[in-house]
Amino acid sequence: MSAPGLRAGPSQEEIRRHNLGALLRYVHINGATTRAELTGELGLNRSTIGALTADLATAGLVTEETPRASGAARAGRPSLVVRPMSALVYTYAVSVDVDRIRAARVGLGGEILDRREAARDGDTSVSETVAAVAAFVGQMHPDAPPDAVNMGTGVAVTGTARTDGGLVQLGGDIERFAEPLAEALSAVLGGDPRISVGKVADLSALAEHSRGVAAGCGDVVYLYGDVGVGAGIISGGHRVTSHGGYGGEVGHMVVRPGGHPCGCGSRGCWVTEIGEHALLSAAGRDGASGRDALLAVIDAAGRGDGKAQAAVRQVGDWLGFGVANLANILNPRMVVFGGTMRDLYLATAASLRSRVNAMVLPACRENLRLRTPKLGDDAALIGAAELAFERLLADPLADPVDGQGGD
Amino acid sequence: MSAPGLRAGPSQEEIRRHNLGALLRYVHINGATTRAELTGELGLNRSTIGALTADLATAGLVTEETPRASGAARAGRPSLVVRPMSALVYTYAVSVDVDRIRAARVGLGGEILDRREAARDGDTSVSETVAAVAAFVGQMHPDAPPDAVNMGTGVAVTGTARTDGGLVQLGGDIERFAEPLAEALSAVLGGDPRISVGKVADLSALAEHSRGVAAGCGDVVYLYGDVGVGAGIISGGHRVTSHGGYGGEVGHMVVRPGGHPCGCGSRGCWVTEIGEHALLSAAGRDGASGRDALLAVIDAAGRGDGKAQAAVRQVGDWLGFGVANLANILNPRMVVFGGTMRDLYLATAASLRSRVNAMVLPACRENLRLRTPKLGDDAALIGAAELAFERLLADPLADPVDGQGGD
Repeated sequence: MSAPGLRAGPSQEEIRRHNLGALLRYVHINGATTRAELTGELGLNRSTIGALTADLATAGLVTEETPRASGAARAGRPSLVVRPMSALVYTYAVSVDVDRIRAARVGLGGEILDRREAARDGDTSVSETVAAVAAFVGQMHPDAPPDAVNMGTGVAVTGTARTDGGLVQLGGDIERFAEPLAEALSAVLGGDPRISVGKVADLSALAEHSRGVAAGCGDVVYLYGDVGVGAGIISGGHRVTSHGGYGGEVGHMVVRPGGHPCGCGSRGCWVTEIGEHALLSAAGRDGASGRDALLAVIDAAGRGDGKAQAAVRQVGDWLGFGVANLANILNPRMVVFGGTMRDLYLATAASLRSRVNAMVLPACRENLRLRTPKLGDDAALIGAAELAFERLLADPLADPVDGQGGD
Repeated sequence: MSAPGLRAGPSQEEIRRHNLGALLRYVHINGATTRAELTGELGLNRSTIGALTADLATAGLVTEETPRASGAARAGRPSLVVRPMSALVYTYAVSVDVDRIRAARVGLGGEILDRREAARDGDTSVSETVAAVAAFVGQMHPDAPPDAVNMGTGVAVTGTARTDGGLVQLGGDIERFAEPLAEALSAVLGGDPRISVGKVADLSALAEHSRGVAAGCGDVVYLYGDVGVGAGIISGGHRVTSHGGYGGEVGHMVVRPGGHPCGCGSRGCWVTEIGEHALLSAAGRDGASGRDALLAVIDAAGRGDGKAQAAVRQVGDWLGFGVANLANILNPRMVVFGGTMRDLYLATAASLRSRVNAMVLPACRENLRLRTPKLGDDAALIGAAELAFERLLADPLADPVDGQGGD
């Protein structure tokens, strides 16, 4: 008999590990913090904070230093500052986007220490993708300090890919990438089993929630657009990862019964009205593709091109339409517009807002904030790094890995 | 500086309280359980389980007894059975439905010990509703054993109400009921502050997830229909209560742009295609209302009435349409059809399934289960009781209430 949600209380050792994780997570998210502030924020006494910090420092995860003298001299001994060892503790973060592959070395604390990028097209195979990532890691590795420790790799994959016909195909893409990519990547990274894979929208939501525009906000919908449209959903501070991890496919919410055919086999999906192709097609630029082409339409609209203006207005109206549906279903505090959705939102905020006002119930609309990302296009990389750091933050002193030690 | 998601480790006393709650929750959900089983399920040793059980027994929350002799005599002393004190520890559960007010006394363990019910119409005011509940409590109270302890009151309110025009108005209804109802009810229940209010769909989802068809299932969408349509959403085992508690308004997802006007002020909301009025109107029975009228159409369809059959088919198709959207957005493991949605689902399962197959991405469709509730119409009452028991289960030995002691 299993009892969902039940868990017995932790042992003393588990509490210590929990506290170590809480302290490390705090400085990972908030940066250098005084011991005095940690005492207050974590609700632990000074001697416990001291002991935990010493353990983390011994493990090479944090340093302690005397704060720089501030203007006014203060009475008594100044509280030591605890700082994450950003240069020596890192993860690799990878983002497999529609048109490029990015990889970065991200230090504890969330700083991008090094990065590489290469173009990619929809026909790029898993093995080619993996080879590119392996090459990037091979280039970045020698530049890391010799005593730096790798904590694993996080990968963000776009939920969509171009098919031969240039349309969006999503179900197939997830099956094509998510699982095999982790295995294949592990194989070229010396058998390191610590490969975590998530969707770009999900991991961007995680990043913006951890250290971006949605910090401190428990109920967030992060909309991400490229060729397709997906959402990362956070509710009550938890990632809504859904049963199979396939949730957030808001681009395949049908908003127009009998509408345009979609690559998924259905008709009238939201993505057929707000995706890149929708805008380009409405603007009479069917042959074009990519974010630059989309930005060119928005730019033309800004310069008074009537056809471009009509296209932007139409797509903005549909963007508001779907956001309104999501607001009624999920009642988020904040909707964040990322990727091409950011560009569209900025170009169409007024008509989008009027759609939202017309369609969202007053109770769900009252406190709704519409925002652009703080982390920009780096959100996916930073979210991938957050995912990879999870293991360390959950249990900082556990053995780094079963397979290979460190890096 | 606030750090979302951070919490320092618990003290020894907090651990004890946590374990008391875990044990009590286990027998509350699973019923009588041997000490041996509790040891295994909660991951605590025998002496800890013994001490916790003794504390709970002293507080009058559980009893311990020797199990009835089973067929084969077993060696050694039989493990004692721990049983919740269902008859002596209870909550009041209230469900304010579209057409009736229900109240029940629900014992620890989830058993409905006593119940009352009265008709209600859309014009019933908050004060009339509260008076009816107070009368029910006044009737049920004398029948409770003199030493029984009341742990508070949970209230489920329908998310919709009839307006003067007979249409669905939702935003207004929530504002009209949710907050004032709790205060007003507290006033007539001797100032008891322990009044928790939730939506029928949310609390039905909680009940089915705790002890119904969705037990053990972490990702659930519970659709509830009466005049309106709402959803209770559970993700990763957590209730998705959303920012203002107003989420789950799936009935106001627009599925047909420019469609029928909805009481919320928008057009083409899902509820205008699958709500009670939609079916009755499609069947040419515009004057009728209520669940019996809806069942009469389904019955007529079963007996071969062409117009009723077409109406049921049409509404079933739209039901599948919205379920497909929700499956793509939330990727649940299970969708449960409650209230009138149950009747519609049973009458239209085939056409609904074909819509789902056509519209849901393969990855989101693969493991999707469509189910009817196990607890039937009692789900809202049982869920309201679960909500009211939450305080006790979180900290079983806390003072029962600041305001008035017990009952």
